Amino acid sequence: MGNIFGRKFRITTFGESHGRGLGVTIDGCPAGVPIDEEYIQTELDRRRPGQSKITTQRKEGDKVEILSGVFEGLSTGTPIGMIIMNQDQKSKDYSHIAESFRPSHADFTYHEKYGHRDYRGGGRSSARETAARVAAGAVAKKMLAHFGIDFKAWVSQVGPLKLDNHYQALDLSAIESNIVRCPDANMAEKMIELIDDTRKKRDTIGGVVSAVISGVPVGLGEPVFDRLNAELGKAMLSINAAKGFEYGSGFEGVSMYGSEHNDKFFTDENGQVKTETNYSGGIQGGISNGQDIFFRVAFKPVATIMIDQESIDIHGGAVTVSGKGRHDPCVVPRAVPIVEAMAALVIADHFMLNQSTRLDQLKA
Amino acid sequence: MGNIFGRKFRITTFGESHGRGLGVTIDGCPAGVPIDEEYIQTELDRRRPGQSKITTQRKEGDKVEILSGVFEGLSTGTPIGMIIMNQDQKSKDYSHIAESFRPSHADFTYHEKYGHRDYRGGGRSSARETAARVAAGAVAKKMLAHFGIDFKAWVSQVGPLKLDNHYQALDLSAIESNIVRCPDANMAEKMIELIDDTRKKRDTIGGVVSAVISGVPVGLGEPVFDRLNAELGKAMLSINAAKGFEYGSGFEGVSMYGSEHNDKFFTDENGQVKTETNYSGGIQGGISNGQDIFFRVAFKPVATIMIDQESIDIHGGAVTVSGKGRHDPCVVPRAVPIVEAMAALVIADHFMLNQSTRLDQLKA
Amino acid sequence: MGNIFGRKFRITTFGESHGRGLGVTIDGCPAGVPIDEEYIQTELDRRRPGQSKITTQRKEGDKVEILSGVFEGLSTGTPIGMIIMNQDQKSKDYSHIAESFRPSHADFTYHEKYGHRDYRGGGRSSARETAARVAAGAVAKKMLAHFGIDFKAWVSQVGPLKLDNHYQALDLSAIESNIVRCPDANMAEKMIELIDDTRKKRDTIGGVVSAVISGVPVGLGEPVFDRLNAELGKAMLSINAAKGFEYGSGFEGVSMYGSEHNDKFFTDENGQVKTETNYSGGIQGGISNGQDIFFRVAFKPVATIMIDQESIDIHGGAVTVSGKGRHDPCVVPRAVPIVEAMAALVIADHFMLNQSTRLDQLKA
Amino acid sequence: MGNIFGRKFRITTFGESHGRGLGVTIDGCPAGVPIDEEYIQTELDRRRPGQSKITTQRKEGDKVEILSGVFEGLSTGTPIGMIIMNQDQKSKDYSHIAESFRPSHADFTYHEKYGHRDYRGGGRSSARETAARVAAGAVAKKMLAHFGIDFKAWVSQVGPLKLDNHYQALDLSAIESNIVRCPDANMAEKMIELIDDTRKKRDTIGGVVSAVISGVPVGLGEPVFDRLNAELGKAMLSINAAKGFEYGSGFEGVSMYGSEHNDKFFTDENGQVKTETNYSGGIQGGISNGQDIFFRVAFKPVATIMIDQESIDIHGGAVTVSGKGRHDPCVVPRAVPIVEAMAALVIADHFMLNQSTRLDQLKA
Repeated sequence: MGNIFGRKFRITTFGESHGRGLGVTIDGCPAGVPIDEEYIQTELDRRRPGQSKITTQRKEGDKVEILSGVFEGLSTGTPIGMIIMNQDQKSKDYSHIAESFRPSHADFTYHEKYGHRDYRGGGRSSARETAARVAAGAVAKKMLAHFGIDFKAWVSQVGPLKLDNHYQALDLSAIESNIVRCPDANMAEKMIELIDDTRKKRDTIGGVVSAVISGVPVGLGEPVFDRLNAELGKAMLSINAAKGFEYGSGFEGVSMYGSEHNDKFFTDENGQVKTETNYSGGIQGGISNGQDIFFRVAFKPVATIMIDQESIDIHGGAVTVSGKGRHDPCVVPRAVPIVEAMAALVIADHFMLNQSTRLDQLKA
Repeated sequence: MGNIFGRKFRITTFGESHGRGLGVTIDGCPAGVPIDEEYIQTELDRRRPGQSKITTQRKEGDKVEILSGVFEGLSTGTPIGMIIMNQDQKSKDYSHIAESFRPSHADFTYHEKYGHRDYRGGGRSSARETAARVAAGAVAKKMLAHFGIDFKAWVSQVGPLKLDNHYQALDLSAIESNIVRCPDANMAEKMIELIDDTRKKRDTIGGVVSAVISGVPVGLGEPVFDRLNAELGKAMLSINAAKGFEYGSGFEGVSMYGSEHNDKFFTDENGQVKTETNYSGGIQGGISNGQDIFFRVAFKPVATIMIDQESIDIHGGAVTVSGKGRHDPCVVPRAVPIVEAMAALVIADHFMLNQSTRLDQLKA
Repeated sequence: MGNIFGRKFRITTFGESHGRGLGVTIDGCPAGVPIDEEYIQTELDRRRPGQSKITTQRKEGDKVEILSGVFEGLSTGTPIGMIIMNQDQKSKDYSHIAESFRPSHADFTYHEKYGHRDYRGGGRSSARETAARVAAGAVAKKMLAHFGIDFKAWVSQVGPLKLDNHYQALDLSAIESNIVRCPDANMAEKMIELIDDTRKKRDTIGGVVSAVISGVPVGLGEPVFDRLNAELGKAMLSINAAKGFEYGSGFEGVSMYGSEHNDKFFTDENGQVKTETNYSGGIQGGISNGQDIFFRVAFKPVATIMIDQESIDIHGGAVTVSGKGRHDPCVVPRAVPIVEAMAALVIADHFMLNQSTRLDQLKA
Repeated sequence: MGNIFGRKFRITTFGESHGRGLGVTIDGCPAGVPIDEEYIQTELDRRRPGQSKITTQRKEGDKVEILSGVFEGLSTGTPIGMIIMNQDQKSKDYSHIAESFRPSHADFTYHEKYGHRDYRGGGRSSARETAARVAAGAVAKKMLAHFGIDFKAWVSQVGPLKLDNHYQALDLSAIESNIVRCPDANMAEKMIELIDDTRKKRDTIGGVVSAVISGVPVGLGEPVFDRLNAELGKAMLSINAAKGFEYGSGFEGVSMYGSEHNDKFFTDENGQVKTETNYSGGIQGGISNGQDIFFRVAFKPVATIMIDQESIDIHGGAVTVSGKGRHDPCVVPRAVPIVEAMAALVIADHFMLNQSTRLDQLKA
């Protein structure tokens, strides 16, 4: 289990890397959201393999098909079923990994937990499953756009190359203008070079994706356990290769004094409550306060490298694992739409949950 | 909502800072776990206010009472209800915060979300609610100790003072030997001095709690969403003042190459699969691999400072908020048992969930 | 596990018959509901033992105490914790049941499932736990009364004595006017006589509780699995001794033709859609249609009889079980408030869930 | 929402009557269960339209395709995704129901709840969605067959024609020997005649499906709310057209005395605890006791009749609704495999949940 996410805007995903197909069901999407396959496809295309020289060169069309829940262009409130068929799932030779445990992959843990596993391309543990998340996230984004809620993620670090600017100093409209998805053109160039170098070394490297969610109304988040920051953290850490999450001031805020870190409230000219600084990252007491929500997600270097590695097989014997196939030298450029999708799913869920917190606002 | 945690070993908590009492129900604890109030009290005493000069001087006995679910010293498999009555919840003057929004507190967000709030001492948003988590976590720890699973958390950073050593270089048995709960005596002294200085300045400062879980069997974690790391991350980020979470190589791992970061498998003399390094932090593909699980949690400086601050009231007008009462200058020493408790609750839940993943291991 | 009920208006209960106390936490009650202990106590008093000559003569005060979630007389949206301490839980001699399996009780199944059980008075399997449900149900009723939703349950059958009238032919205001809670005075007298006779024979007898929910808005119920009728059915069947549930035309409707059974729609003078007949029982396609919801719940004769019975002990040996103590000869008079409470919990939960089904009705 | 069923063996379904396709995801099926499309197809064929003269003559192949979760013929513990594409979902003329509310259908309630609905063939409210349940139930049955748990459902009543015999007096191997699925050949003939007559009158009629589950181990069921009987009741009442559920002695048991109704325990020659009678229906205190579990489900007459009916349209105006298309004159023959499927899903879920109730039985 563990393949259902959300409480009120709930998704269920299925599908392996090399099975017949992937899919997702959204249960709890309100009726009336305009949904079409073209829009969802656009989001999927941002995640798709083979989109540039610094991503894997595998070819997968990732063509989405909506099977239910949408009628005459609008959601009906019933479950939205979507599938993405795998194009060429057979034939290849997987004997090199069928009985081996690749280092820092999930081969060993899946083998032990389930006893029987689909080893082809990593099976369910492959990041290929995130295609289903992106499809569901596209629907969530669409629904939230209706309320002016917007999601932007970008690559802020590759290996040691780190963008120091705060997000407000960046031109976020430039994110998609380069293949690494870094809004700073100079830094983007360096990052691309580093990734390309790494690829040539047949190695991989880590990175960080940053994100900002704007337009979130006050009130999202369900303390004490389902705080908005905790749910965002879980969502991000559920993405393959994620190793850390921080929001607002994050780990750096640790070194600050309370008198520096506290965000001063004020009332703006429109009578809206705002804060002068935003070390809180838009969340206070686990609940959105109307300011921008921003966070960072650390991704480790991809485990699949093209260099021979010593390991063991399922019987405990020593083997050499050779990297084969076409893999991403760095995961973060393609992680950008996944981070946005997961953020949208969290916000959509909490948007729904927040409809019923006050007696005086309940519809009869 | 949001006050239930876990799927199979599930806890529900209730209680405000200055209400009549706090409590927790554990639903799903297996029968046969030896439980007594004395042991739970020991854990609560580690979290209790007033335990040293660097924690708040408030006096709360935090006396736990078990109301159900335990018979003749053993859990019965039925819900374990525990309460902690508040000792002196009335009388005090809260007019200074009844209508004000303290900076970086949850006053504003609770006010907006719920319309009506118990402002006394922060009400439900007070970290006082974590007492209930520690009580539940004590039961989880007890159950897991039966299987040799152990939890150790400590303070690894206060403000800029950061313990650089990897946990294996530390003497974790020394954690409780000083009031800041840092296993390095020299560093502990500096941290205590910094906290004490901060207190005298009527200010607060942040910190980091590190933790290691040992003895976890292979197989815990439910991909793709309920990965063990994602659940640990959520649990930690649900603690008051938490701003970030990382496990294994975390944010630093980002700068590594895959060839450095991959943990090489080997079979030890007892035929057990191990890894030479542990950048994975004991979790691969979202599932525990039998190695130590370790992680770090960032805590911001406590929002309540004893210095006057400008803010606004519930009508949007300007007010000055004066810190009153007795508060922690730094939250991390008392966060240590809370981090352990939340970790134990996650592991207990996944231990239960992992009982039914293979047909050949199901009991009829 | 299994002690949490509801998805959005969620309750968690705990407590054994002879433990220290019982309790319930409501997670998800909206803020602003007027709640006081006196009102909850009134509902508990309807369920309390010792209220008449045809109920058990045990004396339990069932005094409720609210520990959290209510401030200045209104719910705050945070968890409402309530406890009911047991008054005299020690001392009695339970050796007669400690090692015996009483026929048609839960002694055997609890023993096998959990290995270790609190046998005193049936422990968790005692209907005493329903006191916590009634306390929670009182809060749900209060919230729903704000929207004009009302619950009425009554005894419609005791043994073979069956009230034939449809609920619309009954004077439901007369329910509480007699100790058996049957709105027909003549039938009530006969029922009381039958129960009293049964009591004198040291035996027990079954019965049926009927109920009607009025004022439910159109739209409650979440197909395909969480249909309103399915949720009501589960709620009722979760009550001790319940053996059957039917709504609308129920089992009798089976013999009808579709042309007779179909409820004809019409628009009344106020423009409201109504149905001429109501064989649907106010629910169509699993969703409330605005008409009265009515249903019936069958309760078996109480298993505890004062007559000696042959049985076996935990070692499989033959024993004689003698009924001791003070028990209900018929469960239905005291089941009336429990049925109402469970119905209110289901409706409250679905009222919350129904806040977010249409994009055009979502609050931003 | 409401399209997810189960806690540990969880299914999510999607799909409308006339959309592109239906589907189901099983999350939580243990690894190692032998699964093939042929077997699932067999179960689907029992539910399929057009199988006899007394069922609807619509032609739907109901061809299942497994997309994930099965590798080399065995489940892998990852989500099992299955789809059934609709064959001819376009073109037909639905103008007669697009704006009308058919009596006792879900047209009105869906219209009000969601605002926008897929009216073609009833959309999501059509019993067509139960095909997905049957596919999932087939997997559950397969898993449980491994432990000797078996499911048998049959038609025990059509209109007033009621099979009086207790299930033990019936030859359950004869169920599939006639098209009405009644194990008594004489009664079957009468039932078929009645259904055929009803069809000729262009009318419909109700019925009852009875079921027995054998081989269930002691211990399934999670009191106090998730009792096995309550979960079975919910499952059955979630099936289209279900109006009532009773288990064991059911509504008739109401008239019995406790001294008659109590099931006497004894130890059989193999040392197994059994009961002499089984009025408990195999469940005591909400937990299976190892005896046969049996229950009955009432189904109303199908709402779609071929006779003209007066009704209203979405604007409140009067309309005449004419039955069109090919519909079942009586739902129960095709409900038999659905009842079995839902029973299997409940038992599978509780089988999983019951793996972790005793500390001494947990696997490390």
